[in-house]
Amino acid sequence: MSRTHNFNAGPAALPLPVLERAQREMIDFEGTGMSLLEHSHRGATYEAVHNDAIARLRRVMEVPDDYEVLFLQGGASLQFAMIAMNFLPQDGSADYIVTGAWSKKALAEAKRYGALAGGKARAAADMHVDGVCSRVPQQDELDLDPGAAYVHVTSNNTIFGTQFHEFPDTGKVPMVVDMSSDILWRPIDVRQFGMIYAGAQKNVGPSGLAIVVLQRDLLARARKDAPSILQYAVHAEQNSLYNTPNSFAIYMVRNVLEHLEDVGGLAAVEKLNRAKATLLYEEFDGDFYRCPVEESSRSVMNVVFRLPTEELEKRFVTESQKAGLVGLKGHRSVGGMRASIYNAVPMASVEALVAFMQSFRKSA
Amino acid sequence: MSRTHNFNAGPAALPLPVLERAQREMIDFEGTGMSLLEHSHRGATYEAVHNDAIARLRRVMEVPDDYEVLFLQGGASLQFAMIAMNFLPQDGSADYIVTGAWSKKALAEAKRYGALAGGKARAAADMHVDGVCSRVPQQDELDLDPGAAYVHVTSNNTIFGTQFHEFPDTGKVPMVVDMSSDILWRPIDVRQFGMIYAGAQKNVGPSGLAIVVLQRDLLARARKDAPSILQYAVHAEQNSLYNTPNSFAIYMVRNVLEHLEDVGGLAAVEKLNRAKATLLYEEFDGDFYRCPVEESSRSVMNVVFRLPTEELEKRFVTESQKAGLVGLKGHRSVGGMRASIYNAVPMASVEALVAFMQSFRKSA
Repeated sequence: MSRTHNFNAGPAALPLPVLERAQREMIDFEGTGMSLLEHSHRGATYEAVHNDAIARLRRVMEVPDDYEVLFLQGGASLQFAMIAMNFLPQDGSADYIVTGAWSKKALAEAKRYGALAGGKARAAADMHVDGVCSRVPQQDELDLDPGAAYVHVTSNNTIFGTQFHEFPDTGKVPMVVDMSSDILWRPIDVRQFGMIYAGAQKNVGPSGLAIVVLQRDLLARARKDAPSILQYAVHAEQNSLYNTPNSFAIYMVRNVLEHLEDVGGLAAVEKLNRAKATLLYEEFDGDFYRCPVEESSRSVMNVVFRLPTEELEKRFVTESQKAGLVGLKGHRSVGGMRASIYNAVPMASVEALVAFMQSFRKSA
Repeated sequence: MSRTHNFNAGPAALPLPVLERAQREMIDFEGTGMSLLEHSHRGATYEAVHNDAIARLRRVMEVPDDYEVLFLQGGASLQFAMIAMNFLPQDGSADYIVTGAWSKKALAEAKRYGALAGGKARAAADMHVDGVCSRVPQQDELDLDPGAAYVHVTSNNTIFGTQFHEFPDTGKVPMVVDMSSDILWRPIDVRQFGMIYAGAQKNVGPSGLAIVVLQRDLLARARKDAPSILQYAVHAEQNSLYNTPNSFAIYMVRNVLEHLEDVGGLAAVEKLNRAKATLLYEEFDGDFYRCPVEESSRSVMNVVFRLPTEELEKRFVTESQKAGLVGLKGHRSVGGMRASIYNAVPMASVEALVAFMQSFRKSA
């Protein structure tokens, strides 16, 4: 069987050994005569997988002891609401650094919740110019409120192909960061953040799961007036087993983390990711293939580019698909091309894309 | 490979052909060279699965055209909150028929939300006597408010092993029913209900998914002040693709529904379920094996029973496990035994259980 070169923005490529393992274990998990899907979330078999996933995430990300690791449902979109429900104080405010569609949505949800339950959410920056964000802001462009309860940042913008390579300095205000599209792409210092969250379906696993890494000091400040299921404290107290978790997704995340450790951990992954991105960005000549993102903000995960005409872009999409390269069409809101080259996309796929780009340019 | 006899309360047994199909298709879905887990939720391949799942649920349950079918994340527990966020009017109230732990939780979440955002949730009945609910209420035991926005009912109580065999008459007030543990066990008239919801992990698929069947008239009355991700209208407008869905769980639900149609639909399933339950209930002699549930309220899905002493119950759990029968320990809050015999539990498993019960009684 030949694997397609998968450049989807999410759900996205998964490591082949992880899929092979899921296939092998699908019907009879560890000799129990049952699928993991059929195991009780209160049983020893599942709990071992659950706790192993948490332990591996702690180890791989070097999560300090005073941070909780939570596995929640609803993806990053539910986090947009939960962040406000937990951390937007009734008489206080929060800052949002808007660098694309997702941070805009996160701000909108916080504003909605503030209107209902008190609290004000404001943009500390908005990088949209004519509907496009071609870079992330510099420190001196941020209008940060030192009294804010938190500053919300989106570390990587899947649609515009931008990424924070250095995070803003928010002083004593905790940073809450949406890392949905670049969690685990390299080692980071978790202590920079009050909370890290990510939908799993780009760099860590299948869809239907959000990973939350949350400092206990910040958690202690959470509001207690939301429904129980939407309170981080409730999930933290129950080790993410307050209600039935998405057990299959957590199992897959555990296996992705195991694979990640097997291939050398985040330092090795960063090296490979940088090499993949460099190979691709070097193919842009500024003429036929043009990158609309300012150089200092270019994403290592989502590489966006344009061709001279929309007609050529359409042809590029069609012909690349025929050549076994999928997911290269840019987001419908911006057009153009996008190659998502998350952790699980092998160098061979990037090389195949570059070869296709070269032959397409010649033939155009 | 021999399959374990799985009596788990949920996550629970799945049909073997459905697991075999998932195994077969895990790495290369329909010849695309990718796993379904790696397909974009905006792509044609996934969308066909998504829409097929909705269409099959409509067909199998005979869902009328003026009802939405939604696939949401967060399980039934998030529905407890969403029901209040959408349908508890700021100046109105809702009735809850409390028949066990889950309806109690649903009421508690609605009360919490009412305290925050307006609206009153009240118990129209509470069947707890000394912490136990040994039956569901009769119509004349209900203190229903004709001005309520909705009446919430739990159709089957997994922990206490009770079930509504006829639903209450709520007059013109829409009934919102949690069918997590008995959805699809038999044909029902969907028109009796304003909303049906269910966590998928008992009768329909893996964990991490809630199924919602919602009348458009009721939807039109929903509050609009909750975060977008928690509004049913937002998900209905986007065909449950407002955010990335739990695509694997929806794929599995599609396959369970296909299997269900293959074996003759709900009429055939009901016949088998009744035969399984009858075989088991007939084994209760009122002496060694005693059912604490009143006869008219006994569940066809979760059969609870007690033995003469707690010591014998402990031995029963241990020895049944050794005999390849898993999940027979009752919920920790009530003790005793529980055999969950959902749709996917074959008659052979119930026969094996009955044979074990007979030999255990002799040896005790």
